[in-house]
Amino acid sequence: MTGHCRDFDDLRERIAAIRDISHIRALAHWDMQTHMPPRGAEARKEHLATLSALLHERLTDPALGELLERLRTPAENLPPDSEERAVVREMARDHERAACIPEELMQEATRASIDGLQSWLRAREEEDFRLFLPALEKNFSVSRRTAQAIDPDSHPLEVLLDRREPGFTCADVDNIFSDLKGALIPLVAQVEARADRVNDEVLHQHFDSAKQWELSLRAARSIGFDLDRRGRQDCSVHPFTTSFSSNDVRITTRIRDHEFAPCFFASLHEAGHGTYEQGLPGKWDRCVLGSAASGGMHESQSRLWENVVGRSREFWQFFFPQVKRQFPAQTDGIDWEHFWRAINRVQPSLIRVEADEVTYNLHIIIRFELERAVYDGDLDLRDLPAAWNDRFREYLGVQPKTPSEGVLQDIHWSGGFGASFISYTLGNIISLQLFAAAEREIPDLRASFRGGDFSPLLQWMQSNVHAYGRMLEPGDLIAQATGQSLSTAPYLSYITAKAREIYGL
Amino acid sequence: MTGHCRDFDDLRERIAAIRDISHIRALAHWDMQTHMPPRGAEARKEHLATLSALLHERLTDPALGELLERLRTPAENLPPDSEERAVVREMARDHERAACIPEELMQEATRASIDGLQSWLRAREEEDFRLFLPALEKNFSVSRRTAQAIDPDSHPLEVLLDRREPGFTCADVDNIFSDLKGALIPLVAQVEARADRVNDEVLHQHFDSAKQWELSLRAARSIGFDLDRRGRQDCSVHPFTTSFSSNDVRITTRIRDHEFAPCFFASLHEAGHGTYEQGLPGKWDRCVLGSAASGGMHESQSRLWENVVGRSREFWQFFFPQVKRQFPAQTDGIDWEHFWRAINRVQPSLIRVEADEVTYNLHIIIRFELERAVYDGDLDLRDLPAAWNDRFREYLGVQPKTPSEGVLQDIHWSGGFGASFISYTLGNIISLQLFAAAEREIPDLRASFRGGDFSPLLQWMQSNVHAYGRMLEPGDLIAQATGQSLSTAPYLSYITAKAREIYGL
Repeated sequence: MTGHCRDFDDLRERIAAIRDISHIRALAHWDMQTHMPPRGAEARKEHLATLSALLHERLTDPALGELLERLRTPAENLPPDSEERAVVREMARDHERAACIPEELMQEATRASIDGLQSWLRAREEEDFRLFLPALEKNFSVSRRTAQAIDPDSHPLEVLLDRREPGFTCADVDNIFSDLKGALIPLVAQVEARADRVNDEVLHQHFDSAKQWELSLRAARSIGFDLDRRGRQDCSVHPFTTSFSSNDVRITTRIRDHEFAPCFFASLHEAGHGTYEQGLPGKWDRCVLGSAASGGMHESQSRLWENVVGRSREFWQFFFPQVKRQFPAQTDGIDWEHFWRAINRVQPSLIRVEADEVTYNLHIIIRFELERAVYDGDLDLRDLPAAWNDRFREYLGVQPKTPSEGVLQDIHWSGGFGASFISYTLGNIISLQLFAAAEREIPDLRASFRGGDFSPLLQWMQSNVHAYGRMLEPGDLIAQATGQSLSTAPYLSYITAKAREIYGL
Repeated sequence: MTGHCRDFDDLRERIAAIRDISHIRALAHWDMQTHMPPRGAEARKEHLATLSALLHERLTDPALGELLERLRTPAENLPPDSEERAVVREMARDHERAACIPEELMQEATRASIDGLQSWLRAREEEDFRLFLPALEKNFSVSRRTAQAIDPDSHPLEVLLDRREPGFTCADVDNIFSDLKGALIPLVAQVEARADRVNDEVLHQHFDSAKQWELSLRAARSIGFDLDRRGRQDCSVHPFTTSFSSNDVRITTRIRDHEFAPCFFASLHEAGHGTYEQGLPGKWDRCVLGSAASGGMHESQSRLWENVVGRSREFWQFFFPQVKRQFPAQTDGIDWEHFWRAINRVQPSLIRVEADEVTYNLHIIIRFELERAVYDGDLDLRDLPAAWNDRFREYLGVQPKTPSEGVLQDIHWSGGFGASFISYTLGNIISLQLFAAAEREIPDLRASFRGGDFSPLLQWMQSNVHAYGRMLEPGDLIAQATGQSLSTAPYLSYITAKAREIYGL
């Protein structure tokens, strides 16, 4: 890099400002969903549009492009594990993608997602898909044109997929889905035949909101998410995680006073995301490398702590006494094993975010297949609700009665259409592949959960996943951490064994 | 404006982006002081520095200067009450001031205020003024150079004063201070001789924090601050008000569990500021006119609701039953009149924010006189603590025992030095001048408070003050609203009558 020091310093400064603007935009979003008074929304749209325009302006600055061009060859001559090399590579990726997208299209996308959210909320309230259709068509059109602007020669879904999951192709998705469908659809049928073996009534009682809140904080804290000095939890309609630096990570949850699971598992899920954000090296707070490797890698951490840990026998041997103390009446006569079985009940259902671990991926497969059918011209968006319902009947044997428990249930399509859900399934698969690798390396890993000690697992994730940020491509990161390329085998073996154990198959 | 429509549209758009960035910066500040986890501070400094740089860049853009230059003459040909004319005038003012300040000085100021805050906090903790001295010297130097950059031919304090209080001069301050000192110093002495006539022990008991919080919300709501759809209240170390649009106004308070007054009156004070922000016309949310006319005008609204209303007999006839319900044990055997006298107790004291209405302005006068002595070279900053203590003995007969109850008590000098406090005294004076005018126009104004109806007064302030934003210069606004130029008479007549009534002078 000799002779290019000044260029590289210049690049660092430009990236730092880009990261600052992006973190500030995240703050404006966080506030909008947590504390903003309702009437603040109108002005907040303008704030967000202005921040997006500033960000786009900086990202697409031709001077940045020239700088990256000058640094390309010297960076490529650096050793493969060089940080500078990765910075140039990743920043060039972000710059080129942004530069492909015309200013007007970017603004159209911002407006479409804001309008989309409004229409989606209205359509849900009125239970009328037609109120959402124009916004959905707009978002589909924007997503398609964005994909074409980035790479006119590829299938749009391929481009959108690569944007979210770098290096990952539709052919990979096909292989994964084929594995999953082959195993999960018969497994669901087997479980259904023995549905009466699990009773989850204990979860559906009145649970005081303040006590649920405390318990959720305790759970998030216990897995190692720093809620005191480096993070916090708030309430929002849709739980999410965001961060403004590795030392300022915010998670949210939601509380329903007649259900135990939504608040508790949302907190664990988001705290899992939160450990990734807190685990990113602080030196990269204002560097392009200081982000998760991909959407799928991020979901691997949330699903790991929500499910692989948070629905394990060992976790509940440790945690159940705290539930009992908080809710003695509701858990009267219930032991940890009963509770553990209840929170692992498998049942084909309509709502993705409430789905159990066995049926969850079928929800994702349905969505991806529908997106593909739309992109291939085989499905008109007007017919999306019917196609949605057909597929739910086919794969899960259930039938939505209203749009809000069917095609209108997720916020995602209000802000874009294509590869919107795939990260969740990838996250499930990766979480098990990582966990299996950690189990091989750490003796008695599961036993440590029984004592409430999750630090061996967290530290493994920190040093094998979080520490790398965007240094490695997701595929390389998985291979390096687990010794093998992405595979559905650990997930399928885990989920099958768990279903067998609980349902005595 | 014919032929200049396109220029004016361009100007509007530039102003809108400037306002957005400035509101977003306010959000980043608000979050820092309310919800941010402690370790988030390091990154937040960078966010704020980047936002300040973006704002400065937009404000000082030479293209904006050219645009304003082209619009100057056509705007001046518009009628005096034309909105476009005021927009060009006010934006030119902001642009010219910002453009005078070199980029490096602006960045130096940002860093100096961030470091100043840190040193101030440390110096308070250690009770050692010397730890703050280097940062104070830096801030003084930055303020002085900023003033010189804006107008090298004027006294720096004159420039800093004009920036905060447009159209207001040091000669005006001298006149006001001379009036105040002449009346207040003897009044304090008279009251002191009868100090035993007021007992405020009722205020110094244990008051549950959650109940104080609720009561403060009720008080803020009762005066007409919209806490539900257009605003909210949070806790912070130093109470403040900020806004991100007229529909998103945030106030904060602080709670001490062994004192009644700090939380209650901080809420009323900030809610008063909040009514101004909520009263600014929404059409100006993204326009340069959508701000308060000056610091003093803003303080006139906070001091109005905190003191003129919030410490009035009529307010307590209305509100005392709510205090009694919330704190029956603490108010046992106490009636509204006893409570009203307690919260109006006059006593020379050390801490400005806890000072009563009579002695408060002496705290401000001391600060301004010290600032002037430093600017005139008559006082070295090293000798500031001694000079502070001397003057407190002289004017108020009290003597700080530690720096944190003396020279280190206020946050203001950690971020600049000069004209830092004058708005408070102006606010006191203006509040009474406005209130006297409202009383002349609204029959039985005070009687309406007794029924808990503050809307006649609020509406008067909305139509005579808030509705104008920055359309009029503060002096013109006062003259238009009250029929006379700024005068200390209404304030002195109010404060003298009140002290006489309470102390039987």
